[in-house]
Amino acid sequence: MGSNSKTALSALGRRTGEPPISWLMQAALARDNLISLAAGFTDTETLPVAETRAALNELLRSSRSGRAALQYGSTIGDPQLRQLTAQRFARLDGLRPGPRSPWSPERLLITHGSQQLLYLLTEALCDPGDIALVEDPTYFVFLGILQSRGVQARGVRLENDGLDLAHLRAVLEALRRRKQLPRVKLLYLVSYFQNPTGVTTAFAKKRAALALLREFERDAGHPIYLVEDAAYRELRFAGGDEPSALAVRGFARRVVYAGTYSKPFATGVRVGFGVLPEPLFSAVVRIKGNHDFGTSNLLQHLMARALASGRYDRHLALLRRRYAHKARVMQQALEKHFPRQVRWRAPHGGLYFWARLPRGLKCGLDSALFKAALEREVLYVPGALCYADDPTRRKPDNEMRLSFGHAPERELREGIRRLGEVLRDQLAG
Amino acid sequence: MGSNSKTALSALGRRTGEPPISWLMQAALARDNLISLAAGFTDTETLPVAETRAALNELLRSSRSGRAALQYGSTIGDPQLRQLTAQRFARLDGLRPGPRSPWSPERLLITHGSQQLLYLLTEALCDPGDIALVEDPTYFVFLGILQSRGVQARGVRLENDGLDLAHLRAVLEALRRRKQLPRVKLLYLVSYFQNPTGVTTAFAKKRAALALLREFERDAGHPIYLVEDAAYRELRFAGGDEPSALAVRGFARRVVYAGTYSKPFATGVRVGFGVLPEPLFSAVVRIKGNHDFGTSNLLQHLMARALASGRYDRHLALLRRRYAHKARVMQQALEKHFPRQVRWRAPHGGLYFWARLPRGLKCGLDSALFKAALEREVLYVPGALCYADDPTRRKPDNEMRLSFGHAPERELREGIRRLGEVLRDQLAG
Repeated sequence: MGSNSKTALSALGRRTGEPPISWLMQAALARDNLISLAAGFTDTETLPVAETRAALNELLRSSRSGRAALQYGSTIGDPQLRQLTAQRFARLDGLRPGPRSPWSPERLLITHGSQQLLYLLTEALCDPGDIALVEDPTYFVFLGILQSRGVQARGVRLENDGLDLAHLRAVLEALRRRKQLPRVKLLYLVSYFQNPTGVTTAFAKKRAALALLREFERDAGHPIYLVEDAAYRELRFAGGDEPSALAVRGFARRVVYAGTYSKPFATGVRVGFGVLPEPLFSAVVRIKGNHDFGTSNLLQHLMARALASGRYDRHLALLRRRYAHKARVMQQALEKHFPRQVRWRAPHGGLYFWARLPRGLKCGLDSALFKAALEREVLYVPGALCYADDPTRRKPDNEMRLSFGHAPERELREGIRRLGEVLRDQLAG
Repeated sequence: MGSNSKTALSALGRRTGEPPISWLMQAALARDNLISLAAGFTDTETLPVAETRAALNELLRSSRSGRAALQYGSTIGDPQLRQLTAQRFARLDGLRPGPRSPWSPERLLITHGSQQLLYLLTEALCDPGDIALVEDPTYFVFLGILQSRGVQARGVRLENDGLDLAHLRAVLEALRRRKQLPRVKLLYLVSYFQNPTGVTTAFAKKRAALALLREFERDAGHPIYLVEDAAYRELRFAGGDEPSALAVRGFARRVVYAGTYSKPFATGVRVGFGVLPEPLFSAVVRIKGNHDFGTSNLLQHLMARALASGRYDRHLALLRRRYAHKARVMQQALEKHFPRQVRWRAPHGGLYFWARLPRGLKCGLDSALFKAALEREVLYVPGALCYADDPTRRKPDNEMRLSFGHAPERELREGIRRLGEVLRDQLAG
């Protein structure tokens, strides 16, 4: 056996890279005393064990509701959960749910986490060689999907309230000049408390981005979609909510909305959802039929029960207080231990601080700083991992993502203290 | 909006067809009194509501095990569930589990149902234009995956104990003559109580098929894998178990095994698994990282608990008795109501009877027989849907799949009685 040196793998199979985060996770597992400010895991102590148990007991108490939860459902998802989801987010957007609303349960699909929605969407929309516009920096697992599927990414600069619109226009114009607009399929935004920067996109910017994309559609020859990844939307602990891009009048047919119940409830319960216009919606449902013909019904019924009973909202209130507190703990530690030259802003939600070191102080995977941090047993996500491979610009190498989601308070303080020392050493050296 | 008549969909998005089964399901939903012998759903009355509730209560009683179940896991899956799975199936195969065994937890991946494993595998292995060998007939959702991904299928005839090996050789030789072997990536077998025919592949045939594939590997220029879909293996109610292809000595590096806990336990709990050789295993894990970075931990911990506590085996024993009974009910109805010219064999497991009508009596979706059956409010799966689009042979159009899995006994009897009348009418007409 094994005499065939040539692999049978497909182009996709050969192309799909090891995600950089697995390297980080292995590094973490290999060191017992390591404090990881890298993991995107959520807070463990507040996981809703009792609430989940109560909801499941209600569900499985009667054979009628129990059997419904344990049988196959449909590919599109449980009708009650789709209804409750449309109602919930229509309200947040100041809209009414219904068949003619952007928040129509008829265009809402339940997925195995919102990650699956992003994957299905990319499959339905992008051929190898196509182009996706992404924020600079952006969610690195989405970059992994693009890379795996042979899709090119172009970065659009980010400001404190979202996209740099002038840069978006410049990127689109450059693509038009190079006759590449027909390959541009989507603009991907992590619009609430962005992973990795914590930035929230202002509603006005969503509207402006949609108008801009429309301007370039004629030369693209097809729709260019705005994909709004709202994974962190409900993890808000300060400030108000911005409406989603679905609330921009007259543009709902160009918006894909990806949401999730995993992060705000329990990450072990993988239930996400997407709202998509036709013909994308039908294509994504058909592809999901081939993936798994529907997300686990038990998980869907659990989430519907948690939503309908009020347990979800009670848990969310608790979670918001918890993350507000942990963000404050990290902020105080940053103020105390980080050199003044390092810039960061306190987020209003989500799980991350984004720290910018003085230019020239590299902190990537092979930097002296990263190695020194590992030696001091503290781990962060090097910011460069969150930048697309876009040949039209250099990747900044002086930023880091610091998560307050998973580590307990004591570790947040100690981790930032150690990192602060490493930073001072490096700045002094 | 919508002024762009051109779609932005990818080739895959455009290619992916509506699965024929959704048409059947819609037909079923539209008629209240319809008896469906088409659905692949499992028996509703025996769904393990109490067992699931008990296992979840144990899991969620302590905050330690509860939190572990509600947090993210790893992409490859829960270590305990992988260990238990390797042990369970190694025993069935007469092997020992362990790092050097074909049943190594290190090469075992947990998926969101075994359907997801089939999808990931096809992604990792097949480019558009590649060729997959399948049984004639075979599981139609796998045909849907191939069609969606632009993979061609070639049918290999089926005998009562599995593949027609002479035909497999003839198909491979024809492909060699046409220089198409380099495109052949896999042979897909539903090896236990096959969907749709109920046929089980003899172990000797698995061994012979592997030897045959190896013969042709040199001209292929790469490995050709035997993919064994064992979804129905545990739903055995008569006869003994055949070892899997992993038990063929010296060939484990050419075997992919896909299994599931969904059908033998609860279809609403989507937990499947795959055993794969390198480099396939790593490629599939990386691709799954992009799909969903791991199957819901809650479902995995539930299954591990059900296995470890013995609840899974107790439920399986009950389920086997139940399906043995329902198969008997269908058999008696077939003996009583079907004309003698219709041929079928009683299965030893699984969910299906496969009936062959006299040649010339068509029963496809647009046949008079299918329409007459719908008018009598009884639905079956036309066998032609289970045949690949293989231009080298005609699809038989005189077979039907009859499922005893979902419908209650009364409906099994009445459904077969109605179908029998329709068949007599058509034979008389």
